[in-house]
Amino acid sequence: MSRIFSFFLFVLALAAEPADFIWSARYVITMDAQRHVIENGAVAIQGDRILAVGTRAEIDARFQAKQRLDRPDAILAPGLIDTHTHAAMSLFRGIADDLKLQDWLEKFIFPAEARNVDREFVRWGTRLAAIEMALSGTTTYTDMYYFEETVAEATKEVGLRGVLGQTVIGFPAPDYKTPSETLAGTERFFKTFANDPLIVPAVAPHAIYTVPDEVLKSCRLLANRYKEPLVIHLSETKHENEESLAKRGKTPTAALESLDVLNGWTVAAHGVWLDDADMKILKARNTGLAHCPSSNMKLASGVAPVVKILSLGIAMGLGTDGVAGSNNDHDMMEEMDLAAKLQKVTTFDPQALPAETAFAMATITGARALRLDAMIGSIETGKRADVIMIRLDQPHAVPVYNVYSQLVYALKASDVADVMVNGRVIVRDKKIMTIDPAPVMAKAAEYQERVKKSLAR
Amino acid sequence: MSRIFSFFLFVLALAAEPADFIWSARYVITMDAQRHVIENGAVAIQGDRILAVGTRAEIDARFQAKQRLDRPDAILAPGLIDTHTHAAMSLFRGIADDLKLQDWLEKFIFPAEARNVDREFVRWGTRLAAIEMALSGTTTYTDMYYFEETVAEATKEVGLRGVLGQTVIGFPAPDYKTPSETLAGTERFFKTFANDPLIVPAVAPHAIYTVPDEVLKSCRLLANRYKEPLVIHLSETKHENEESLAKRGKTPTAALESLDVLNGWTVAAHGVWLDDADMKILKARNTGLAHCPSSNMKLASGVAPVVKILSLGIAMGLGTDGVAGSNNDHDMMEEMDLAAKLQKVTTFDPQALPAETAFAMATITGARALRLDAMIGSIETGKRADVIMIRLDQPHAVPVYNVYSQLVYALKASDVADVMVNGRVIVRDKKIMTIDPAPVMAKAAEYQERVKKSLAR
Repeated sequence: MSRIFSFFLFVLALAAEPADFIWSARYVITMDAQRHVIENGAVAIQGDRILAVGTRAEIDARFQAKQRLDRPDAILAPGLIDTHTHAAMSLFRGIADDLKLQDWLEKFIFPAEARNVDREFVRWGTRLAAIEMALSGTTTYTDMYYFEETVAEATKEVGLRGVLGQTVIGFPAPDYKTPSETLAGTERFFKTFANDPLIVPAVAPHAIYTVPDEVLKSCRLLANRYKEPLVIHLSETKHENEESLAKRGKTPTAALESLDVLNGWTVAAHGVWLDDADMKILKARNTGLAHCPSSNMKLASGVAPVVKILSLGIAMGLGTDGVAGSNNDHDMMEEMDLAAKLQKVTTFDPQALPAETAFAMATITGARALRLDAMIGSIETGKRADVIMIRLDQPHAVPVYNVYSQLVYALKASDVADVMVNGRVIVRDKKIMTIDPAPVMAKAAEYQERVKKSLAR
Repeated sequence: MSRIFSFFLFVLALAAEPADFIWSARYVITMDAQRHVIENGAVAIQGDRILAVGTRAEIDARFQAKQRLDRPDAILAPGLIDTHTHAAMSLFRGIADDLKLQDWLEKFIFPAEARNVDREFVRWGTRLAAIEMALSGTTTYTDMYYFEETVAEATKEVGLRGVLGQTVIGFPAPDYKTPSETLAGTERFFKTFANDPLIVPAVAPHAIYTVPDEVLKSCRLLANRYKEPLVIHLSETKHENEESLAKRGKTPTAALESLDVLNGWTVAAHGVWLDDADMKILKARNTGLAHCPSSNMKLASGVAPVVKILSLGIAMGLGTDGVAGSNNDHDMMEEMDLAAKLQKVTTFDPQALPAETAFAMATITGARALRLDAMIGSIETGKRADVIMIRLDQPHAVPVYNVYSQLVYALKASDVADVMVNGRVIVRDKKIMTIDPAPVMAKAAEYQERVKKSLAR
């Protein structure tokens, strides 16, 4: 009997296709075009790719995996995509809250940045943020900051995927003193990270009101020459719009369009004050947008017309923004929940932005906003293996009547148990696997004292 | 040497006052009148009371504790107070989301309640909710549901403090068929839980539009006769206000006042559509209010004028409401964050409802809303020992520049590590100590299938 059984296993192993991993869960949320949700589902992974997705029975019959993770009490979903952040600012978490924008910027953020931000600050801050993101299920994030090649190094160290924008701004910055130096540095950055499996290098002109027109144009040309994205803040505040209208007679979007800045791969953050004509331009240019509900609420910027934007077919993802006052964490589970609730209460329509749409914004729609939807954003054969396991083992996670509703309105960042990016397990059982968090936490404490002292001066 | 040292310890033990517990932390947030925050602070507890609060050095010099808990990486704060919930509805978590209120009520909630709610449902649902609340730092909650004596039993089992309102409603309910039966039952409930150390029994006429006027008056008389509170929904929706104005020519608040229903200890939930005259009445009557931002946003009820209400000196706490669609969790850390952000974005003022005010709503102001502020809501000598430890050991929790900001905008329910209610440790190291959660989770799964089937009929 035992010999026959061994022979049977041998035949099965011959017949089965090899896979590096099989991950199975109570529910697999694919976010494919048909929005398949597979009960008792599984996914097979080989190298950096998803080989197949199906029921656990189907996947187990077809594949023989080197490693497996079976979580009958979890949801397996595409990794979350944060479309707008300033990661390194994590070291300024909550440095100044509940202030008017000008006071916040001028009395706290600008002095704090001028006195503290250097390459090492950016390295440790990005590590801290990237660990926070990984632990809360974010697998791809979009950044705008300084020393962006160092951001890229820290991002790869933690194992996240990043669309990383080197900031270009019209005044001396911590890394480069002039826009032309910055552009030269950005070009080197583009070359260093060309074809990197995890990093999409980008150029990030800060905003229309902080970057001279000629520099904005140069950013676009540079991005297009290297076929990399341009990321920018757009119509975040009413003041920004009013100033643009007063100075240029055009909205920020129309002004950027007239400078030909939107002519290419672009991701624009906020879009709170977009009007119909702006949306028409953004739709025509296939510009991706990042909605940042926490930030827009906390800074009292206003409420982006998300329902309308999405109804026009413009891809709008979700972003956490920086944690130095605009938000105080990088928690995409919270942004989904906020996005849905904020649209409902401000439109007086409880059906506005339902849970499934909010979850899409955090995954496949976010991927579309970044023009990376051929690669990430859903669990489909051939896509990169960016997947997360979210457990249903806590009292707040049960019962489950609707998986999208549970994800958006009940589950928390702390329910994320396992995270894989590009076929690599970066979080296992709620522990970061790629980097020792202890020295990062210690550095955060060290910077806390240093930054406090720098502001007391 | 060793004998001298033993003698020294002996003398110290003689000199020191006895305490059951000393809990120390990096920061002790007292929420006393001066809002003292004590770095490297501690609290001594004896029986159900706080003996003293001070620096760790002071407390250690003065007291000799049987048990101690030292968390140099945590915030020690008053337990959170949830001023409005329907705990047992946890078994309906997310049963129907993103629907118009009438569809939600008539197609899902009412049928689901009619077909499923009995005493056992309430027992298991309350257990589930109470464990969720305890794990997320809630030490006191206010309930409105059916079979409230069973709610009280489950609440005591988990070890929470509760202001528990027996629902009185103008149609046959799962527990009682008529208002007069309900009132008789409520009177028995009052007698059973008179002088209970954890339970404040209350009468809960559902709302002005679901309870006949004569019954509303009887509720008030009963509450006053037993010196217990009356809890009620008030001006939650625009429809409720318009209907009241059309039928009675009075706002709901004015109508209740004219019926003398507000003449006594009252906690009213929502208050979204209160006008100036309503606020004047509520102030004069010293009515406590419960603000439920998640619920008001999700059901698109509107935005309560919280800043104005608080500026008038009316005590408004925070509430999670039920999890069957109005919210999908009992997470007070989230409600604080939402309350602050929602006021900012809707008033276009980033200074509206700062973090400290939001944290006060979740603690001492909530206690005032319940008229229990002599007993709970702050860490002060003589108050009940309702305290929580919130850890700062995760990447999202550091650095710390401002403790209130961190609590409201960055820390999560999952950071709550230890919870004490009335001098009893009910959560230790993120584990519930008072009840085995496994059968409760199993029951939730069982009810999930049962409820699904009941709605498929």
